[in-house]
Amino acid sequence: MSKEVSNILRLRKLGIDTHTENIIFMRSDCLVCRSEGFTANTRVSVNLNGSSIIATLNVITSELIAENEAVLSEEGFRKLQAREGDLITVTHVQPILSFSEVRAKMFGKKFNESALQRIITDITHGLYSKIEIAAFVTVCSGDNLALDEVIYLTRAMISSGTTLSWPVPRIMDKHCVGGLPGNRTTPIVVPIVAAAGLVIPKTSSRAITSPAGTADVIETMTPVTLTLEQIQAVVRQEGGCMVWGGAVKLSPVDDVIIAVEKALDIDSAGQMIASVLSKKAAAGSTHTIIDIPVGLTAKIRTREEAFLLEYYFRAVGLAIGMELDVLITDGSQPVGRGIGPALEAQDVLAVLRNAPNAPQDLKTRAIQLAGLILEGAGKADKGKGAAAALSILESGKALDKFYRICQAQGGFREPQAAPLRHDVLAERSGLVKSVDNRKLAKVAKLAGAPKSPGAGILYHAPIGKHMEKGQPLFTIFSETQGEINYALAYMHTTDHIVELASP
Amino acid sequence: MSKEVSNILRLRKLGIDTHTENIIFMRSDCLVCRSEGFTANTRVSVNLNGSSIIATLNVITSELIAENEAVLSEEGFRKLQAREGDLITVTHVQPILSFSEVRAKMFGKKFNESALQRIITDITHGLYSKIEIAAFVTVCSGDNLALDEVIYLTRAMISSGTTLSWPVPRIMDKHCVGGLPGNRTTPIVVPIVAAAGLVIPKTSSRAITSPAGTADVIETMTPVTLTLEQIQAVVRQEGGCMVWGGAVKLSPVDDVIIAVEKALDIDSAGQMIASVLSKKAAAGSTHTIIDIPVGLTAKIRTREEAFLLEYYFRAVGLAIGMELDVLITDGSQPVGRGIGPALEAQDVLAVLRNAPNAPQDLKTRAIQLAGLILEGAGKADKGKGAAAALSILESGKALDKFYRICQAQGGFREPQAAPLRHDVLAERSGLVKSVDNRKLAKVAKLAGAPKSPGAGILYHAPIGKHMEKGQPLFTIFSETQGEINYALAYMHTTDHIVELASP
Repeated sequence: MSKEVSNILRLRKLGIDTHTENIIFMRSDCLVCRSEGFTANTRVSVNLNGSSIIATLNVITSELIAENEAVLSEEGFRKLQAREGDLITVTHVQPILSFSEVRAKMFGKKFNESALQRIITDITHGLYSKIEIAAFVTVCSGDNLALDEVIYLTRAMISSGTTLSWPVPRIMDKHCVGGLPGNRTTPIVVPIVAAAGLVIPKTSSRAITSPAGTADVIETMTPVTLTLEQIQAVVRQEGGCMVWGGAVKLSPVDDVIIAVEKALDIDSAGQMIASVLSKKAAAGSTHTIIDIPVGLTAKIRTREEAFLLEYYFRAVGLAIGMELDVLITDGSQPVGRGIGPALEAQDVLAVLRNAPNAPQDLKTRAIQLAGLILEGAGKADKGKGAAAALSILESGKALDKFYRICQAQGGFREPQAAPLRHDVLAERSGLVKSVDNRKLAKVAKLAGAPKSPGAGILYHAPIGKHMEKGQPLFTIFSETQGEINYALAYMHTTDHIVELASP
Repeated sequence: MSKEVSNILRLRKLGIDTHTENIIFMRSDCLVCRSEGFTANTRVSVNLNGSSIIATLNVITSELIAENEAVLSEEGFRKLQAREGDLITVTHVQPILSFSEVRAKMFGKKFNESALQRIITDITHGLYSKIEIAAFVTVCSGDNLALDEVIYLTRAMISSGTTLSWPVPRIMDKHCVGGLPGNRTTPIVVPIVAAAGLVIPKTSSRAITSPAGTADVIETMTPVTLTLEQIQAVVRQEGGCMVWGGAVKLSPVDDVIIAVEKALDIDSAGQMIASVLSKKAAAGSTHTIIDIPVGLTAKIRTREEAFLLEYYFRAVGLAIGMELDVLITDGSQPVGRGIGPALEAQDVLAVLRNAPNAPQDLKTRAIQLAGLILEGAGKADKGKGAAAALSILESGKALDKFYRICQAQGGFREPQAAPLRHDVLAERSGLVKSVDNRKLAKVAKLAGAPKSPGAGILYHAPIGKHMEKGQPLFTIFSETQGEINYALAYMHTTDHIVELASP
């Protein structure tokens, strides 16, 4: 026989982090558990002081919490601005109407603009669970989104968050579609472009599954978590910034969708375009250069894929009124030597400081990208942008601007590599034939990057270089021996990361 | 600076039930959390005494557990046969290779037989997380599976679990695709068919999102959780059984997939066919009757949909060597009067006992289905099956057989309705024009069915009946006033459940 249990519950905080999903833990004998039932996706509304969130139900079958108590995941506490001891009410959730559009898409019906607006609004408000987002991401995957659907999706994502506006008509930006370790051109491009007198308020992301996001790299040299007002002050003063975009809620729904996409390890062209361009448009950018590295172990594997992506970028850019240039680059191997926040930052500084040992490949890429931006803004003639950018870099003006931006963001510091090192040696001699970017990134992650900013890899074996047996192919940097061991254990389970040509 | 933490951890049990997904809760400062990173879908291998499961990582940021401790969800404890205090090791998981087939399907590539075998094997072994299953279910949804893919999927699901074999060549079975409250023909059909000398080892499911599964209804009258050996003994003695299929692991992967399908509220023809026929084939059935109720608020909404489903059932049945008959029935309103385990059981008993007030619609359906089975097995001429079934029912032989089967399963008891009642009254007079099956089912669930077996609804207003203002349309039965209030609160948020024609 059941007893009467109220649906007013006292919140307990147990420090359970369930990533981006709100979870509520309730006792199996509570009224809500009894009447809602408990499925793989039971969702309830959790209400406190007029705010409410939707949470997925997990059930407590022990005495971990008392009757009339409930536990929220940390994300739930944050979103509801709740504290331990607060009294919540838990109520029934109506079905999410917009999800019927996702179901219709499963049956081959195209999304119209209103459908995508409603879906994106509901995801932004936390109405979709992880598995519902997984279904949405799946119906948008592959080549299942037509150009008009990508345009609608981009517009819907732009309007899901803050939009920045700037007092000048021309706002420059750059973006790399990613997937290539060490391809850290942003902290070189931004000071060159800003030193040329242009405005480039660059926001970057943190790593999700890679060993370093651009924001992680820059953070080893200067603070990147700035408020909107601070960003505007830095840009007003220096013409450019290098900050973490997550702090300013540009296209916030993108983070939620990307988390599930990454979990499924799918990169669909449509989603990627909408994700990138919605962030750029929300940041107020009017001119954007897109870097698409192509390589067998990069995100984009063939030139055909890159061409298709270029088409989509240009067509959606046109539809939302953004000028776009695309640069298809070599993605066959890491750029520079470092992989991991501090190690990549050291490469960046070597280039900015015109150090004799600065990685030339990183320098060349940054110059090319900065050159295209200068050309796009009319600061250099067609074909003369790279030379103009090189001159700004080699004159020391870019380094000076870099330090000034860092100062405006809160100060500069030298990036520090982690203390423990382990060399991975060539087992025989030969010319380097290929390198697996993905596996290299995985090793850097297992060594602790980006959580330990000094951890990662220093890579010594570019394609075409002759290695002697016993020479280090790369060096693993880590804070702990345990992490080095974990990375080595992974390497034992996989094929060669660096392939040498047969003698 | 991080400290050294081992990846050997002591298990804590906190009674956290996360439904069918294995979750491991680990401290944010442990080695694995540091090196794997923490995403929406971080998966690790949890190993104990040579067994291992894959679990999704959640992170504990408090002192809820000590260093070197980890918590598993209840499902994880069950699958690993672990106990509190056991020492587990947590290791890195290789990417799931079969998921690349799901990704390829997103790009429009068809599944071949090997792909579906590998996917189903990996899901069976718990390698897929909920969101990966959501992606799989989505690419199989709508009309995205061709006939050959449905056949491969069915075969893969059959081989994922136990297969029963019987010492007679002809094994009868029935299945209803569901979605219609009160359509509880199984406990009437089984005794009629068994009384005719045929073998019908019927396994049924429990409710997932409905107010009563067939197993829940039968359980109010006799035990349904039998071992394989007990089932075989019952069938040997009586020719039939009425048991819960979940206890005997027929097509176990089906439960995992259905949980996610239900969560997304999608019913795709291909998945449904594979799900039903794999369970039937695994149960050893050679002849199956499929009941497809059609109605605007039933699972199948149009006759066109029903015809397509019939085609798939017949074609897949042919491919796996099963004889099939399909009966398309009226799904416009509930069958019988009761909705909820005990209330439906009372309808069933009234029919079996030839009580004067027995619901005729339920009786007619059961007779039709049993008749088709008798015809299919050569126990009646074509067109004469229903009359033969009726004669077995009205002679009392079916009731006698029903009691004998219950006795063999562990004894018979009278089902008991819940004590609290609330009449929902007609607000004006008029002819009943339509009824919303889904909303009626929801009210029965909120009233406590099937967790409280006596809870649910007694329905008094069949389509076409004249109701006076103030007459009860239906009666809500519940164990607690709180549940009645919860059901009434839902009714206030929705349109009329029973529509009366304008005067």
